[in-house]
Amino acid sequence: MFEFELLATDGPARAGVWHLPHGDVTTPCFMPVGTQGTVKALSPRDLEASGAQIVLGNTYHLHLRPGEDVIAKLGGLNRFMAWPKPLLTDSGGFQVFSLEGMRKVSEEGVEFRSHIDGSTHFLSPEKAIEIEWTLGPDVAMAFDHVIPGGASRTDAQAALERTLRWLARCREKHELLKAEGSKLKPAPFSLQPSAFSQCLVPIIQGGTHLDLRRSSLRGTLDTGDWRAVAVGGLSVGEPKVVMQAVLADLETVLPAGLPRYLMGVGFPVDIVASIGLGMDLADCVAPTRMGRHGTAFTDGGQLNIGTARWKERDEPLDAGCDCEACTTFSRGYLRHLFVAGEMLGLRLVSLHNVRYLIRLAERARAAIIAGTFDAWSREWLRRYSSREPS
Amino acid sequence: MFEFELLATDGPARAGVWHLPHGDVTTPCFMPVGTQGTVKALSPRDLEASGAQIVLGNTYHLHLRPGEDVIAKLGGLNRFMAWPKPLLTDSGGFQVFSLEGMRKVSEEGVEFRSHIDGSTHFLSPEKAIEIEWTLGPDVAMAFDHVIPGGASRTDAQAALERTLRWLARCREKHELLKAEGSKLKPAPFSLQPSAFSQCLVPIIQGGTHLDLRRSSLRGTLDTGDWRAVAVGGLSVGEPKVVMQAVLADLETVLPAGLPRYLMGVGFPVDIVASIGLGMDLADCVAPTRMGRHGTAFTDGGQLNIGTARWKERDEPLDAGCDCEACTTFSRGYLRHLFVAGEMLGLRLVSLHNVRYLIRLAERARAAIIAGTFDAWSREWLRRYSSREPS
Repeated sequence: MFEFELLATDGPARAGVWHLPHGDVTTPCFMPVGTQGTVKALSPRDLEASGAQIVLGNTYHLHLRPGEDVIAKLGGLNRFMAWPKPLLTDSGGFQVFSLEGMRKVSEEGVEFRSHIDGSTHFLSPEKAIEIEWTLGPDVAMAFDHVIPGGASRTDAQAALERTLRWLARCREKHELLKAEGSKLKPAPFSLQPSAFSQCLVPIIQGGTHLDLRRSSLRGTLDTGDWRAVAVGGLSVGEPKVVMQAVLADLETVLPAGLPRYLMGVGFPVDIVASIGLGMDLADCVAPTRMGRHGTAFTDGGQLNIGTARWKERDEPLDAGCDCEACTTFSRGYLRHLFVAGEMLGLRLVSLHNVRYLIRLAERARAAIIAGTFDAWSREWLRRYSSREPS
Repeated sequence: MFEFELLATDGPARAGVWHLPHGDVTTPCFMPVGTQGTVKALSPRDLEASGAQIVLGNTYHLHLRPGEDVIAKLGGLNRFMAWPKPLLTDSGGFQVFSLEGMRKVSEEGVEFRSHIDGSTHFLSPEKAIEIEWTLGPDVAMAFDHVIPGGASRTDAQAALERTLRWLARCREKHELLKAEGSKLKPAPFSLQPSAFSQCLVPIIQGGTHLDLRRSSLRGTLDTGDWRAVAVGGLSVGEPKVVMQAVLADLETVLPAGLPRYLMGVGFPVDIVASIGLGMDLADCVAPTRMGRHGTAFTDGGQLNIGTARWKERDEPLDAGCDCEACTTFSRGYLRHLFVAGEMLGLRLVSLHNVRYLIRLAERARAAIIAGTFDAWSREWLRRYSSREPS
């Protein structure tokens, strides 16, 4: 369990499969975000139809509402949201560190006020891991110290060192919970309780400083027999070329045998670029957030479905797409739904965008296996970037 | 085409089948409302899964946005909204007469201001029929003079007489369009253009006055070889017993061979009562409107899914229901979706409510065919009314 098989490489780009308790995840892979126990506007059936293999849940949001104990009583997060395939939860670190002015950080952890009702809560490495264990996903992310995009080298170094200390505490707590066995954990959706297992994944920090990134990776690999490695703290405001430089350097030192999860990235261009730089898994709220605003990803670039130019247009959002929105409805109809304020519009463009990113990863995978990734990705980028803005 | 077969009766209750160009409609039948070219929160696939046989479109809304010409260019209303089964459009009469203070009524028609942008528009019998022809549904409703619930006898009489005069104009226009053939009409979704046909259906008015209702019916039947009859102007604020008295009296004089459409009704209790009084078809926005507010119809009565009592409850909304919401999710999860403001909650409870009413009509039909409608409906009503409010 939790093994990663590397099936093909094409330059730094990789195609593989990650074996998780609720199923296999073929990589490269885009993971939709189900913040509050639902990928916004989509049902589990929509997600399965979109080809989703793994969904992310947010520990911060689920802890505040409805609370991990409620979810455990209702059978764990898989059963709660009726998602039968793999789940990954973040640790809440990214969210609580974003609560500028509403949080107090110490070595012990982070005291913060809820964005919902202002009530006071506390997250520590131990607490985050306990919540994630109770939620019951296949993959639990470690609790890390996240810094703003433009943080100084000193701050970045302090944060990565704290992240390493916290990682040791996460690991100890996770081992303890595993040793205690099934007492605390819910019965996963499609498994016998005895088959439940969970993988803890560390997060590499270090901001945009190449040497700090390498130091964070070394410190992490030295402390455990990890089954995957995540790269955090990117796509937080730094220029794209800076992010790509960090990934390009990290790629040369990341172990080949572990899946690499680039957290919170991203838009189509970022997904293709990160695959080209050796990343295996990515997540982002962009497809559903953009979808709710009527912005659709297409092979010809982004388009805004609400504009008047689509009023009488009979073609689908994206002629090459096999999603329900593209195989069923015209741009004219989708535009009408947005102009008329109909919920179905938000859902259909969200569905399309999620399918677009998942299919993008599938296409990248096919190109990697065929040994044509470089040519494919250049041609894709040329078309995606050539479109006049709409 | 447009023939109605009466297959069984059980007292006044009837089971039949209405043959329409886009398919058969078995009756009694509940028809979901797709106001703006979409049944709110649901996709065509959701509707098909809910057992919907026919959907209503609103001429008033579709004329204002996106306009019938746009819909015609995009293949007609069936194709526009990707609904392959029968469609019925109202004439806009009910909507424009509801625009108190924003409309001017004359014998010619109704001048009104759009609720969207205040722009001035005009609907007449001829204009409404032309719009409905252009939209291309199987069934087009006549343009009638609608009066408020508590209207005087004098007003009710004047309105029903005008409705009869307008009906003659609707019929003349409809005959003209049929004679002109395919020039104006769109290609329907699943038919060859040459197979397109449309049925014009008259509306009985007369308020709550039994003799005026009979007079409206006589005047209507005298003027045409209609294929169905609708009863309008009920469920507009009058007590339920008054509506039922009107239906009970009308039932004795309605021709058995025509399907009877009770417009704008209603809630589960009204649906069952109207079936018991010989009505065959009903529509209402209640299931989706209530669904968006978290109120669910169940065999134990209405329940509000947002209340705290459901927080940790694992059972479905309605144990007897076969909809996606009930076969997939717990009340605890649905409650969470509403508390967290997630769109999926609105969709799932809307879907359940639509399926509930469609299944209610299916259950009534089975009881009518079995000759047990009276006992079934009493038992259903006893359970539906026995629930403590939640």
